[in-house]
Amino acid sequence: MTRNDGRQPQQIRSFSVTLHPNKYAEGSVLIEAGETKVLITATVEERVPPFLKGQGKGWITAEYAMLPRATHSRNQRESAKGKLTGRTMEIQRLIGRALRSVVNLNALGERTITLDCDVLQADGGTRTTSITGAFIALALAVHKLDGTVKFDRYPITDYLGSISVGVIQNQPVVDLNYEEDSKAKVDMNVVMTGSGAFVEVQGTGEEAPFTRSELDGMLQLAEEAIIQLVAMQKEALGTAGVRIGGIGV
Amino acid sequence: MTRNDGRQPQQIRSFSVTLHPNKYAEGSVLIEAGETKVLITATVEERVPPFLKGQGKGWITAEYAMLPRATHSRNQRESAKGKLTGRTMEIQRLIGRALRSVVNLNALGERTITLDCDVLQADGGTRTTSITGAFIALALAVHKLDGTVKFDRYPITDYLGSISVGVIQNQPVVDLNYEEDSKAKVDMNVVMTGSGAFVEVQGTGEEAPFTRSELDGMLQLAEEAIIQLVAMQKEALGTAGVRIGGIGV
Amino acid sequence: MTRNDGRQPQQIRSFSVTLHPNKYAEGSVLIEAGETKVLITATVEERVPPFLKGQGKGWITAEYAMLPRATHSRNQRESAKGKLTGRTMEIQRLIGRALRSVVNLNALGERTITLDCDVLQADGGTRTTSITGAFIALALAVHKLDGTVKFDRYPITDYLGSISVGVIQNQPVVDLNYEEDSKAKVDMNVVMTGSGAFVEVQGTGEEAPFTRSELDGMLQLAEEAIIQLVAMQKEALGTAGVRIGGIGV
Amino acid sequence: MTRNDGRQPQQIRSFSVTLHPNKYAEGSVLIEAGETKVLITATVEERVPPFLKGQGKGWITAEYAMLPRATHSRNQRESAKGKLTGRTMEIQRLIGRALRSVVNLNALGERTITLDCDVLQADGGTRTTSITGAFIALALAVHKLDGTVKFDRYPITDYLGSISVGVIQNQPVVDLNYEEDSKAKVDMNVVMTGSGAFVEVQGTGEEAPFTRSELDGMLQLAEEAIIQLVAMQKEALGTAGVRIGGIGV
Amino acid sequence: MTRNDGRQPQQIRSFSVTLHPNKYAEGSVLIEAGETKVLITATVEERVPPFLKGQGKGWITAEYAMLPRATHSRNQRESAKGKLTGRTMEIQRLIGRALRSVVNLNALGERTITLDCDVLQADGGTRTTSITGAFIALALAVHKLDGTVKFDRYPITDYLGSISVGVIQNQPVVDLNYEEDSKAKVDMNVVMTGSGAFVEVQGTGEEAPFTRSELDGMLQLAEEAIIQLVAMQKEALGTAGVRIGGIGV
Amino acid sequence: MTRNDGRQPQQIRSFSVTLHPNKYAEGSVLIEAGETKVLITATVEERVPPFLKGQGKGWITAEYAMLPRATHSRNQRESAKGKLTGRTMEIQRLIGRALRSVVNLNALGERTITLDCDVLQADGGTRTTSITGAFIALALAVHKLDGTVKFDRYPITDYLGSISVGVIQNQPVVDLNYEEDSKAKVDMNVVMTGSGAFVEVQGTGEEAPFTRSELDGMLQLAEEAIIQLVAMQKEALGTAGVRIGGIGV
Repeated sequence: MTRNDGRQPQQIRSFSVTLHPNKYAEGSVLIEAGETKVLITATVEERVPPFLKGQGKGWITAEYAMLPRATHSRNQRESAKGKLTGRTMEIQRLIGRALRSVVNLNALGERTITLDCDVLQADGGTRTTSITGAFIALALAVHKLDGTVKFDRYPITDYLGSISVGVIQNQPVVDLNYEEDSKAKVDMNVVMTGSGAFVEVQGTGEEAPFTRSELDGMLQLAEEAIIQLVAMQKEALGTAGVRIGGIGV
Repeated sequence: MTRNDGRQPQQIRSFSVTLHPNKYAEGSVLIEAGETKVLITATVEERVPPFLKGQGKGWITAEYAMLPRATHSRNQRESAKGKLTGRTMEIQRLIGRALRSVVNLNALGERTITLDCDVLQADGGTRTTSITGAFIALALAVHKLDGTVKFDRYPITDYLGSISVGVIQNQPVVDLNYEEDSKAKVDMNVVMTGSGAFVEVQGTGEEAPFTRSELDGMLQLAEEAIIQLVAMQKEALGTAGVRIGGIGV
Repeated sequence: MTRNDGRQPQQIRSFSVTLHPNKYAEGSVLIEAGETKVLITATVEERVPPFLKGQGKGWITAEYAMLPRATHSRNQRESAKGKLTGRTMEIQRLIGRALRSVVNLNALGERTITLDCDVLQADGGTRTTSITGAFIALALAVHKLDGTVKFDRYPITDYLGSISVGVIQNQPVVDLNYEEDSKAKVDMNVVMTGSGAFVEVQGTGEEAPFTRSELDGMLQLAEEAIIQLVAMQKEALGTAGVRIGGIGV
Repeated sequence: MTRNDGRQPQQIRSFSVTLHPNKYAEGSVLIEAGETKVLITATVEERVPPFLKGQGKGWITAEYAMLPRATHSRNQRESAKGKLTGRTMEIQRLIGRALRSVVNLNALGERTITLDCDVLQADGGTRTTSITGAFIALALAVHKLDGTVKFDRYPITDYLGSISVGVIQNQPVVDLNYEEDSKAKVDMNVVMTGSGAFVEVQGTGEEAPFTRSELDGMLQLAEEAIIQLVAMQKEALGTAGVRIGGIGV
Repeated sequence: MTRNDGRQPQQIRSFSVTLHPNKYAEGSVLIEAGETKVLITATVEERVPPFLKGQGKGWITAEYAMLPRATHSRNQRESAKGKLTGRTMEIQRLIGRALRSVVNLNALGERTITLDCDVLQADGGTRTTSITGAFIALALAVHKLDGTVKFDRYPITDYLGSISVGVIQNQPVVDLNYEEDSKAKVDMNVVMTGSGAFVEVQGTGEEAPFTRSELDGMLQLAEEAIIQLVAMQKEALGTAGVRIGGIGV
Repeated sequence: MTRNDGRQPQQIRSFSVTLHPNKYAEGSVLIEAGETKVLITATVEERVPPFLKGQGKGWITAEYAMLPRATHSRNQRESAKGKLTGRTMEIQRLIGRALRSVVNLNALGERTITLDCDVLQADGGTRTTSITGAFIALALAVHKLDGTVKFDRYPITDYLGSISVGVIQNQPVVDLNYEEDSKAKVDMNVVMTGSGAFVEVQGTGEEAPFTRSELDGMLQLAEEAIIQLVAMQKEALGTAGVRIGGIGV
């Protein structure tokens, strides 16, 4: 099988990370995966949602949106429609949940960090790229916060990366672009920690069900890809003097 | 490990199915999984959504809601809030997508079948129980429709069942009730066809990431449970004279 | 005149009451009037709406909804529309107002009881059946509450029943089903206490105005019917050990 | 019993009617009942709602609103809230329904007349005053329309008036002002045709139930009052050359 | 150039002011500019918006709406649409901002005055007429408030008037009516204080851009007109015993 | 007076323009004015809004939004609020109106061009910078369209630039940044064509009214600045081979 952009099945696209594209946010990153571009800011606020008040715990939440012309044809703004689509809600719930899995909310204390993931241009993999990039923005914000708060326990417990996998012509492939995504019979998003544990596994075979062996093949590709993404995170954060965790992380 | 209701890890709750609880709907079922009770109706309409018009294809969609006091404390109605929550949208998108995987939309022709899944009482597993029950209501409606339309190709291609699995005290368990759900470190929903292929795999380790071995253990339990649920569907539908597919289905 | 289901003009449909269909609610009932089926839960909460705060008084409120396929054809969910229809608002205001007429809100103390009336299947008379059933759910909840609170004065002061009446072919008839409702020239709903006083009289002659004599005929039928419904309430509540009021009630 | 403004129990307030306060509308009236002032316009449009398309029938509908400071304290605008209250919906449904009872929609043809009832100042009885005034605006609009359309059958079949009645200190009284309304134990609105038939009877005993004899007393007062209001309508419309119906109307 | 109603380019329409049309509001006025009629009430409330709490400052805000049939054809109510149009928001922000420019919010103390401007009939110039009239209603309310509060510094610092100007057939004209407005190539609204300083200058040349000399011509006409409007305000307020400011105002 | 960033009163910030930042849009530009950054896309669609159907005319419209963390503190998304703020509506109406003033809508034909202006980072002047940048994106899109449509008359008739001016310490200054904007007593936005005519003049003296002489001073600065911005547009568009109009434009 030849992929439409000449990649090998197990080959991810070219990823790039630009730190601090926003001068106001506590943490920010522009992450690019091929032609997919997501601008992410992390905002720290000294308050928590009502359901957490007075418990000494913090909160991590995410919002996700696409600019109207991030895609081939223009989409109506959700602000003009007056409500979020189910797809948007699903994605931002996923991003927030994934990030919380590597944050010790008690260690964070009564503050909220909001990750705004705005897709400037979309070419497949926007939700997984948002997670991988949002982790970097979060790490920058927590690092900055640590400068003043001096955390007893460091709130971030591990790295976190995410990638999409799928099956095209019976062949598992990784990091699908938009055109590939449209013809894949299975679509799966995987989130893993730097330590190699699963945080989210979401596979959908709407076009055609998939076998256990296809599932195993996709998980294998996802694992290898996320190892590369975590290495990229370490390098990018390293240039900003940020290092997560202790031995083995 | 002892489960809070005395079940074995691999043991599903007592399921029961009541056919035709609604006198107007083209198909309807009341499905009970332990104390979880979902009333499901299938409505056939001779029209399709705008994006499908004129293509000769049909559509399957689902809506999901909980009565305000389906749970321990009362929830505000979404109609009173003026919008659906992200959770509701996520669930009804999942139900529709899962059902479409076993329907040949071309064979169905330009008509829409809407599955309304209303949870009368919730004790865990409402989304998976909705899928298992909605398949029955759908099969009843298509069977009835076949009486007048006389389909060339039968639109339903396979049975479809769904169950939840999780990890409690490092032990994979199946079909969690509400109390178990609250203390599980992983929460996974699996949808499979009668032929044993995966349609949806959605695992979330918000509380704690999970290993590949835990994932494998959960998938094994899910597979065994769904075989039992499909057998139950065959029996229930059989009493109504409905039989899906040919040899081996 | 022969009615479409063979009843006499003054004859109500077969009513049945199932207590405690919901295991979480403080009070619950499934009430059936012919093919009309309403599931009702009473929820007790230890708070009152803002306009009552600090006055030592309680509040009774109601919400009403129909499942999408409760009727011949499917109705769009109000949660999907994003707002309640005028009909729904009118009905739930009526139910709440009617119930409050037999509750001493000062005796109840600063708590709210919400009656959720969800119509599973509709064949005419859903609002009046909701009132008759909601009274039972309310009585169960107050009885349960009395076990812990030990009210000084019992908050419920009388029984409360409701029925619809109309004029078909110049003949007053009681408890109209859907088909009768569609052809009646007058549509009236009456709510009365166990003591025989009127709480609500709502008659509408949109199709054709009605005379004083027709009004009197309808009121007469309503009164006789409500006496039967209150007897049914006493019997049903009696099996649960609930008895309202003192001598003569 | 002495009423707070010195009136007899059976005495309505001073009513006044100003025709054509609006230069654009097909019909318009400013109606005052004591300190209650309602500005009403009738708009004729050559189209009908979707559910009536192609049936050759017309439609009459009404909208009702209060200016924010029509009352003692300011109310938030419903446009700012983003939705209509239940009270507003109930009232505008009532007004539309009442007017349709005296209009032959087939005779009207495929057009819609919308009655906008905007309360400039409220001192009790705004819904009944709106109905009485809206009838006049409707009659003016139909009269004007008749000049060009030359109706075969005149679409308006009778006059229509409305008044409120209640019980204060066990005494039925008519046309309650705001202060009386607040202390009345029963609140009833009655709509009648010029021929003396009932169109709407809506009585509510939220504070205390009412007896059959009180009901009869209120209906009697309402009937006498509406006769006076219809006479006022005839006189006001007469000055504009408008006369409804034939012999005896 | 001859104007469609015979006026000179520099001639404003006939203005009239009726004080106290509303018996509840702290200040109220009915202002008419030709056929444009706006009913304005000022409501005083002893609270401020959240962003001002605890600062000892007051707030002035405005709301603007048109009755549905204020214009040639009926407009849908914004309450029925569920949201305000951009035009309404723009106008009410303008009115509030303009009035605040002549109010010392510190002197006012922690209270809010809301100006409700409801257009009963529209024939051009509704936003400028609202500002001119709202100043009068505001002045009446502050005067009344001063009777009980006894302000140290009087909160109103100057008179405030507003007018529209435009260019028709290359000729600057003042106070355009609806028909003129439709054919003007430039549309400008000016707000000035009694002392002759500018508060708002909003000119729009959507149909055709305008020159500096046309701009100067329009500003000249606006200034002359506002001097007349302020004189009218002084006279009207004088009859109610209200006088703003000291020497030279 | 010294400005906070060392500029002269008549000196605009450093502007930069990046063409084609988006690979899907028919025209796109990233415009930076100091630290203010706006990403703008032009989308061409072969349809017009309902009010223009069948007239052979086109339409230009604009939408404006700020990313949540474009400013010092995070703003809630308008999509999450469910509605646009008045400020957003005002700005996007302004942008659309301004652009239409230099487009011959008849020459454009029945198509709509939507300019999406998304503020990535805000440091004052976002609305004027949006207009200046949107003109470039529009010109790119029309140029591209001309390649296939071959317009008889070129739809764009002139260049269009916009800048803010204000008064700080009695000194008119141009192109205010956020900090200057906060302390300016007057805030004015000016839009002019390449030929030097005014399209919009919007001045607001909420903090303090302004004199005619201050107004003249601000208009002078705006004119000089816009000449520079138009020169910048010509240069940027020139590199893409786009040239508007004939001699003298």
